[in-house]
Amino acid sequence: MTTLAIVGAGVMGAAMCLPARDRGHEVRLIGTHLDCEIIENMRATGLHPKLQVVLPEGVGSYHHGAMGEALRGTDLIILGVSSLGVNWAIDRLCEHLTKPIPVVMLTKGMYPETNTLTALPDHVAREVERRTGMTLEIAAVGGPCIAAELAVRRHTGTVIAARKLDLAQRLGALFETAYYHPRASADLVGVEACAAFKNFFAIAVGWAGDNHNAAAIIFVQAISEMMAIIRALGGSDAAVLGMAGVGDLYVTSLAGRNSRLGNYLGQGLTYRQAISGPMRGETIEGADLGIAAAGTLREMMLQGKLAASALPLTRALLAALTGDRTLDLPWADFHRQE
Amino acid sequence: MTTLAIVGAGVMGAAMCLPARDRGHEVRLIGTHLDCEIIENMRATGLHPKLQVVLPEGVGSYHHGAMGEALRGTDLIILGVSSLGVNWAIDRLCEHLTKPIPVVMLTKGMYPETNTLTALPDHVAREVERRTGMTLEIAAVGGPCIAAELAVRRHTGTVIAARKLDLAQRLGALFETAYYHPRASADLVGVEACAAFKNFFAIAVGWAGDNHNAAAIIFVQAISEMMAIIRALGGSDAAVLGMAGVGDLYVTSLAGRNSRLGNYLGQGLTYRQAISGPMRGETIEGADLGIAAAGTLREMMLQGKLAASALPLTRALLAALTGDRTLDLPWADFHRQE
Repeated sequence: MTTLAIVGAGVMGAAMCLPARDRGHEVRLIGTHLDCEIIENMRATGLHPKLQVVLPEGVGSYHHGAMGEALRGTDLIILGVSSLGVNWAIDRLCEHLTKPIPVVMLTKGMYPETNTLTALPDHVAREVERRTGMTLEIAAVGGPCIAAELAVRRHTGTVIAARKLDLAQRLGALFETAYYHPRASADLVGVEACAAFKNFFAIAVGWAGDNHNAAAIIFVQAISEMMAIIRALGGSDAAVLGMAGVGDLYVTSLAGRNSRLGNYLGQGLTYRQAISGPMRGETIEGADLGIAAAGTLREMMLQGKLAASALPLTRALLAALTGDRTLDLPWADFHRQE
Repeated sequence: MTTLAIVGAGVMGAAMCLPARDRGHEVRLIGTHLDCEIIENMRATGLHPKLQVVLPEGVGSYHHGAMGEALRGTDLIILGVSSLGVNWAIDRLCEHLTKPIPVVMLTKGMYPETNTLTALPDHVAREVERRTGMTLEIAAVGGPCIAAELAVRRHTGTVIAARKLDLAQRLGALFETAYYHPRASADLVGVEACAAFKNFFAIAVGWAGDNHNAAAIIFVQAISEMMAIIRALGGSDAAVLGMAGVGDLYVTSLAGRNSRLGNYLGQGLTYRQAISGPMRGETIEGADLGIAAAGTLREMMLQGKLAASALPLTRALLAALTGDRTLDLPWADFHRQE
């Protein structure tokens, strides 16, 4: 049995309580400052109000103010805050950790730097090390995991990535159940980059709307361009062909905000028109990534780290997101040979 | 301008009239003995009754009895008969061809032999050569092409495969339009095998029903196993990652009879219960392939041409189709590492 703390009581953090408790671990779910209502609810009734699921018996729920107490004696931290909450989480880790314990990130993201994009887990580990001197073992969970499905114990597959395969395997072994199927990867960068870019490319697949023939062309082109980008960032083809890549692109293309934005672009709206109209106020991760990473990606192309000719779809999508023009797909520039 | 004959006036043959006529070729659509009503309709009104589309001006329509006349002076034959009509088509080619002209097959299939599966185009070419002494240049069209979408000029991408890339490229150049996007491949076997096996694996993806998490696991496993099978048959990974592979698997998993059979299997019906109940009388290509190829695939595993351990999904599916038992997915045997 392991004692683990899940930081962030949103749907994804809460859903992880299922395999964790079903494997008999002691689970402490810690809300952020934005999760107070959720924690209150759970303490009163056990029901997670966003998942609409009663979490398993024995999940402890803690307000953020009790984090010190909740982290005492834990062997493992699972970070399930939103991307925006990462800096808050880093502050809390630095404040409360007295010895290095492994951190598994459900939170995803790629930080744009001038010449490359850095995976969020590396950013977190670097910051904690800089501020506390502690080197954390860090891992990340990728792959198509709809929280509401996991929360009712439907078959769910993820990939747990860490720089050391051994750590990824040990973590997977902690959570594997008859319905939760984690696999291991030593390609932390590849898995994280796929987790980010699948959202970006799902926008493009969404462009096709109910035109299946067109969706398939874009899907194939997206896999190829994702491979080129992930390679340039130091990741592997196996990540792209795995759960965080093609597996999650499949699911994300079928449903969700990214593909819905694509639908609107396919109807001729510009990005600005979509987000100030039918999608006002919604977070569209793939678009946020594209806008944040556009400069870096273009710089990588200019420096020859990425072949511009291999990325017609990426370039069209970046142009639409950053230039506020309609998304015109350059069909003739897509693969002409297999 | 090329003069081309399309043999088989079903939806797929008829839909090919669109890019062919839009590129200004002379198009002669020849019905089989089963297409008489379609040809009558088209002659009377121009409307293709199954597509519910009026074909472009200038498409000539011919009854099978007039095939000799229709083939006179053609530079190219497109074979759009059903798999069951292939032997009929071979007879007609042998009867009418006076010189070798290229044949492009829309008809798909893999012929099981003891140790391997032979692609339908190779079977056709071999038969014609055996009986007439003529060596035909043969090509095949793969990829996700829903006829009804092509028939209204929606963006459609295909892969044209021939043993000589040059032929594939020349054929693609004949049909490319603003909405029809063919690409070329020299991997005839890989493309044909993907075209067949994507139906088989779409059954498995369909098993998941509306469980997206599970569908993604199966989708990823399917790509990996398809790659193993296509390699063993002599095809390339590029085919699997291309239009006939992952592109068509994407579309076929979303809709159609193969994935619908999968849905029923996921609900606990056996194959026999499904085809004698809710799917009575329907042709399920992926199941037909699985049943026809099961012996060959098992023999290839026994001979070590295929690693059985790499094919848990394939084996479970074959067991369900040939052994009339429920499809139990061996989750723990799926990839545990990426």
